[in-house]
Amino acid sequence: MKEYIEKNRDRFMSELFGLLEIPSVSALCEHKNDMEKCARAIAGLLSEAGADKADVYKTEGHPVVYGCRIIDDSLPTVLVYGHYDVQPAEPLDLWKTPPFEPEIRDGAIYARGSSDDKGQIFMHMKAFEYLVREKKQRHNIKFIFEGEEEVGSAHLAKWVGEHRDMLACDVVLVSDTTMISEDVPSVSCGMRGLSYMKVDVTGPDRDLHSGHYGGAILNPANVLCKMIGSLIDEDGRITIKGFYDDVAELSSSDREMLGHAPFDSKEFEHSVGVDAVSGEKGYTSLERIGIRPCLDVNGIWSGDTGEESTKTIIPSRAHAKISMRLVPNQKADVIAGLFEKHFKAIAPEGVSVKVSSIHSGNWFVVPISSSLYGAASKAIGEVYGTDTVPNRGGGSIPILADMHEILGADLLLMGFGLERDTIHSPNESFLLSQFFKGMESIALFYKYF
Amino acid sequence: MKEYIEKNRDRFMSELFGLLEIPSVSALCEHKNDMEKCARAIAGLLSEAGADKADVYKTEGHPVVYGCRIIDDSLPTVLVYGHYDVQPAEPLDLWKTPPFEPEIRDGAIYARGSSDDKGQIFMHMKAFEYLVREKKQRHNIKFIFEGEEEVGSAHLAKWVGEHRDMLACDVVLVSDTTMISEDVPSVSCGMRGLSYMKVDVTGPDRDLHSGHYGGAILNPANVLCKMIGSLIDEDGRITIKGFYDDVAELSSSDREMLGHAPFDSKEFEHSVGVDAVSGEKGYTSLERIGIRPCLDVNGIWSGDTGEESTKTIIPSRAHAKISMRLVPNQKADVIAGLFEKHFKAIAPEGVSVKVSSIHSGNWFVVPISSSLYGAASKAIGEVYGTDTVPNRGGGSIPILADMHEILGADLLLMGFGLERDTIHSPNESFLLSQFFKGMESIALFYKYF
Repeated sequence: MKEYIEKNRDRFMSELFGLLEIPSVSALCEHKNDMEKCARAIAGLLSEAGADKADVYKTEGHPVVYGCRIIDDSLPTVLVYGHYDVQPAEPLDLWKTPPFEPEIRDGAIYARGSSDDKGQIFMHMKAFEYLVREKKQRHNIKFIFEGEEEVGSAHLAKWVGEHRDMLACDVVLVSDTTMISEDVPSVSCGMRGLSYMKVDVTGPDRDLHSGHYGGAILNPANVLCKMIGSLIDEDGRITIKGFYDDVAELSSSDREMLGHAPFDSKEFEHSVGVDAVSGEKGYTSLERIGIRPCLDVNGIWSGDTGEESTKTIIPSRAHAKISMRLVPNQKADVIAGLFEKHFKAIAPEGVSVKVSSIHSGNWFVVPISSSLYGAASKAIGEVYGTDTVPNRGGGSIPILADMHEILGADLLLMGFGLERDTIHSPNESFLLSQFFKGMESIALFYKYF
Repeated sequence: MKEYIEKNRDRFMSELFGLLEIPSVSALCEHKNDMEKCARAIAGLLSEAGADKADVYKTEGHPVVYGCRIIDDSLPTVLVYGHYDVQPAEPLDLWKTPPFEPEIRDGAIYARGSSDDKGQIFMHMKAFEYLVREKKQRHNIKFIFEGEEEVGSAHLAKWVGEHRDMLACDVVLVSDTTMISEDVPSVSCGMRGLSYMKVDVTGPDRDLHSGHYGGAILNPANVLCKMIGSLIDEDGRITIKGFYDDVAELSSSDREMLGHAPFDSKEFEHSVGVDAVSGEKGYTSLERIGIRPCLDVNGIWSGDTGEESTKTIIPSRAHAKISMRLVPNQKADVIAGLFEKHFKAIAPEGVSVKVSSIHSGNWFVVPISSSLYGAASKAIGEVYGTDTVPNRGGGSIPILADMHEILGADLLLMGFGLERDTIHSPNESFLLSQFFKGMESIALFYKYF
């Protein structure tokens, strides 16, 4: 496909920039129209690439784009999944160039969504275009691109269930993850699940003067801190009762195999700007990310949060968003239930506690021994000129576990992002070399599968 | 003075409303001009009331208003202290009527600053006007009204030191506190000191994807919670090393005397909307507020603090504002130092911690046996028709301890606010009955002193 890329490079970049310029932030309601605009743009690209059918479907949330080119019902069918929505770009002042004005510098495309996930779904559309125009398509190819991945894919599972026949496939193929490094191409062999919770602690019925009441009334912010502080013990283990009951311990041979991924602790620390790694006792950093569960405060707020102001109050309420990443064989809904029970049980008298689930999803694994994994590994290995290693990512794509279950299809993740892309953070980018090698690898995968 | 009030009531209300309409929020720089406007309005009121001199003085922060009427250098001099700045009014949507559009309903004046402290300094100006116009002034009377009380009076101590001669006095008289209830008039016999700190915990150099890193990197929000959670133990005692070293334990007779203040725990709980009081083991609620130190989170924020958004990140930073109320013989600067040392000592490897002091001030006491206290008690008792009780307030007016030290003057607090005023909170109000009884009590105090 290399030649085809060379010939069409300028058009590719201009089409991709068109997508990246649309601020399709699913979490913010002021971008509702941008979501629709982005969905229509993608359907247009699919049509132009050669899809027989490419439509925007309304859902209870943001629209779904579906397109396909069926060449022979007896051939295997690949359903390409991705998402066109992006994370909010704030804080804007930390971006070197505006998040929705893509720019190429130092060999990378800088824009929100460049890596997660518009750049990656774009690779699939262009690999598909190549197969169609060069008459190399040997599978039925379907596309489903959703607009709610960054907000938990709340409505997609229902929609997939309702369109089960249209979406029928043998494999769901996803590019929404990273590989270990440019030099160490890897194929994902699984991802973690997620339970994402919100907690609200309420004390007095209004903010109180901290002088007039301080010492005699429980302060909900102090209480919330103490409760959250107790959720992880000195060994880095989560204290929620029953939390580890279903965690499958990996065999030492499996741990050894996953340990093949090159990892330099000092380099890892340097790459995120900390002076020490930290986590569950008895596991390596890669294991802590790949095969062990974790619990993180994603946001907390209470009382006077202004940098300038100095309100001496006992806040009436304190809030936090807490996510837990889950591993085989934990069930997201079971963990959400255990969390709620535990969090309410540790609340002291004098405050009330509300716990709600924001969203959740299950983990999944891709067997390394499968022919599917083999085809992807062979294609990527050929493009990168070196053997791939298996990689167990720490992130979550909850909808994939759902699609696996609803459609009865296998899952395959060919991710071309890199940690340097800083997705979800300011200055998200996608290396051009990964972008083009990704396209080639995808086209080649269809040859070997 | 009752008759004088009746005659001038409408003018009083219109003048007071004029003051309350000025949004003199010292913490917010967009109100800088309002601060100056308010200072000039107060100087104008002092002149009209009969001051020989009433000027607005520039400081390094917001202006100070000073006025006086000296009748005889050999007579005792009273310096009335108060503040014209107010707390921010946010959250605005919880106000029944706008904070800077004063309204009278149910016998109370509703507006930000109505009780804290514009309404109370207004009482002093009108009692003074009465003494002047009715030719009853028998002391030299000076006024100092500052504009930075709600932000820690950062520049006033210096200014007072520079104007020591002008401010020379025998007693600093303050109305910026509450009494126990309308039926239980009380005179303050002391207030707590304050150390108000800000802490910043920094982990990774940017927000990280909580899936890609969760479990392997310390999360600054989790860490801050654990650190704050450890500051108060299960007995409600503060764990900072050396924190209680200088705390003077009250004798059982002193504790008994302070216990005379009527207090109904159920009523107290009901008044703030909690189902249980809580605090340091071994002390009553009134003791916890009046004679024991405490530690409160006044604000905390980190990561994704939006109600709607759902960013799955490990935040780069986590912040909190923490205030400690102090009692005899704790020193605010010593406690700030102990806090900083302790907070840094408990920080785990993998994060960096910054601790800074926002502001601080010392406690003070007013001896119940003094003639000053006696005159105030007699005046208030006469106006309210019942004996007063001593009251040890939990709040802090740091500048008073400074003025006591700089001017060598005694302190006297005649507060006419009530807990129902909800100062620092939405719907701040000041009962008209307290407002007028306050004026009468102040006028009568000058008779008995």
